[in-house]
Amino acid sequence: MADEVRVKKDDLTAFCVAVLERLGVPKKDAEIVTEVLVVADLRNKGSHGVARFGRYVEGLKKGTMLPTDRSTVVRETATTALIDGGGCLGQVVGHRAMGLAIRKAKENGAGFVTVRNSNHYGIAGYFALMAVPEGCVGMSMTNTAPLVVPTFGRDAILGTNPIAVAMPAEGEPFIFDAATSVVPRGKLEVYDRQGKPMPMGWAVNAKGQGTTDAKEVLGNLGKNLGGGILPLGGEGEEFSGHKGYGLAMLVELFSSLLSGGAFGLGTFSEGGSANIAHFFGAIRVDAFRPLPEFKRDVRKFLDEIRSGTKAEGHERIYAHGEKGFAAERERLKNGIPLGPKVVEGLKKIGVEHGVPWPA
Amino acid sequence: MADEVRVKKDDLTAFCVAVLERLGVPKKDAEIVTEVLVVADLRNKGSHGVARFGRYVEGLKKGTMLPTDRSTVVRETATTALIDGGGCLGQVVGHRAMGLAIRKAKENGAGFVTVRNSNHYGIAGYFALMAVPEGCVGMSMTNTAPLVVPTFGRDAILGTNPIAVAMPAEGEPFIFDAATSVVPRGKLEVYDRQGKPMPMGWAVNAKGQGTTDAKEVLGNLGKNLGGGILPLGGEGEEFSGHKGYGLAMLVELFSSLLSGGAFGLGTFSEGGSANIAHFFGAIRVDAFRPLPEFKRDVRKFLDEIRSGTKAEGHERIYAHGEKGFAAERERLKNGIPLGPKVVEGLKKIGVEHGVPWPA
Repeated sequence: MADEVRVKKDDLTAFCVAVLERLGVPKKDAEIVTEVLVVADLRNKGSHGVARFGRYVEGLKKGTMLPTDRSTVVRETATTALIDGGGCLGQVVGHRAMGLAIRKAKENGAGFVTVRNSNHYGIAGYFALMAVPEGCVGMSMTNTAPLVVPTFGRDAILGTNPIAVAMPAEGEPFIFDAATSVVPRGKLEVYDRQGKPMPMGWAVNAKGQGTTDAKEVLGNLGKNLGGGILPLGGEGEEFSGHKGYGLAMLVELFSSLLSGGAFGLGTFSEGGSANIAHFFGAIRVDAFRPLPEFKRDVRKFLDEIRSGTKAEGHERIYAHGEKGFAAERERLKNGIPLGPKVVEGLKKIGVEHGVPWPA
Repeated sequence: MADEVRVKKDDLTAFCVAVLERLGVPKKDAEIVTEVLVVADLRNKGSHGVARFGRYVEGLKKGTMLPTDRSTVVRETATTALIDGGGCLGQVVGHRAMGLAIRKAKENGAGFVTVRNSNHYGIAGYFALMAVPEGCVGMSMTNTAPLVVPTFGRDAILGTNPIAVAMPAEGEPFIFDAATSVVPRGKLEVYDRQGKPMPMGWAVNAKGQGTTDAKEVLGNLGKNLGGGILPLGGEGEEFSGHKGYGLAMLVELFSSLLSGGAFGLGTFSEGGSANIAHFFGAIRVDAFRPLPEFKRDVRKFLDEIRSGTKAEGHERIYAHGEKGFAAERERLKNGIPLGPKVVEGLKKIGVEHGVPWPA
């Protein structure tokens, strides 16, 4: 893009950390929040990167996100814990919770931690990947703002509810990190901005019927007029939309129901925290088989899949995570590309908080 | 259907148990195998019910499935175990493995058991649901014969790889039990028999490109000529087929890679057991919150979803498992409907093994 600029990871990190510190976030926690955002940008998941930084700044200013860690462990066993997030930053409580799950897995084979009363925690994959250097399989899920319509329904009552699972492997790990909706809201926004009809099968209108009009769907979602994004598998049951709907339900059940948190339309009440919930898990690989053998075989498996014959017109089969890690390598070298609107927003935040934007 | 007959659950059960006993399966194990099959028929998952009984009979006769339980625990911790299935009946080792996962969860909060070198275990949901009366969340996955093509590929290298998760609830439990492919092979067979074009987006031809010709796809799969069923989300990335592909990978990773079992094309080698692998998990709900509260809130959540406004032209929103439990209630009363071909096959097996078909 013409007006795209490249910003070095360390410069972008220092900027965000400084702003968060001005807002009362302790340095250590500011670094966690920033890392989760910057890693998303490095791995080409820009929708969850510093483009969202303004939302955190706003949340901290309004008090809907608390700057210091108020999370408390409500209940705990050797393999499980329930944490109340206390309305603090999702990344901070997420980092704490996933760390606890990993510690329990290392000590006892498996660890699971649910968190209620939290805020947006960034990319689910960040937390799942924390388990990999510790020799564990990592899992992470979260419910989100309601945007997704259940099969045969017309009200957006479920979140895009991502599921992330990471597995150690020789070379790069395997990382599955996906919303359980057919597409994220951001894809509709792209079609809206371009004024193009989106593919049929992504979303439904206020009557719960398929539409290609992204503007209409986004408008209806904004005013709670009905309709929304479809679950993975699309409309009805012909392409198994009920499976995506079921996966979204699972995320809500593991996150909100297991933690006693808010679910469905109970999240995002006026003036409070997002009141969303997360689920974290870790399982120690060497409880089942020696880690080096597992890592070798996962690599072999991924290579076998990728080396299969390609569909006509395609040159590559990708393993999950592969595209993101390639982007990360390139961006660590050349800087993170940021669009003009994102840069403008960050600069404005910098001025407001007396933090100079990196030259 | 004109020639459909209704058979009482107890009669069908007694028939199958008697045949399995004639083939050297101990009574207790014959009852487990039969229950997994009959429950599938009761819950309207006939493709995994007694229609498959002949395959087990054949496997036992050929020796690719061993009649007695040769499974051994290879490695064990307080929360995990690795079992070698020893090529015996999948339902028997699955029942043992899930029971072990539940015991570990009850004692230590969470339990996970992987199984390698096993055979078809029936419906994944059966095992996940075993956890529910014990106050646990239950999980079960298995790899299967390679029928599914990865995104941008043209070779069927992944199984339809189902994922099942069950959650306790007031009234009926929540049970998600779904293949990670867009449809099961059985759906293609229906279109093939009827000579109708199937929906575009279910499968690809030998070049890896979308096709509506079910006969061609099934023929190619039978001869390993390329092509196969698409993962949930369909062809390419437009409707997020890469997510379904990733879910299928996860099943293979949790089942085969974590157990050190065969994966992809390494399964179903000539003359041996199916050599597939399973994964079972249980997490105790009351490690997080009191079970009655959880069950009450899950029911409330499911009711909230189901009572949402319906899409125009639809009268119901279903919770996962709901249709199956309704079928079960009806069939326990009126008997299990079996088509003429299934009945014919069972009668023939009865004659061969000296077990009279129920009048």
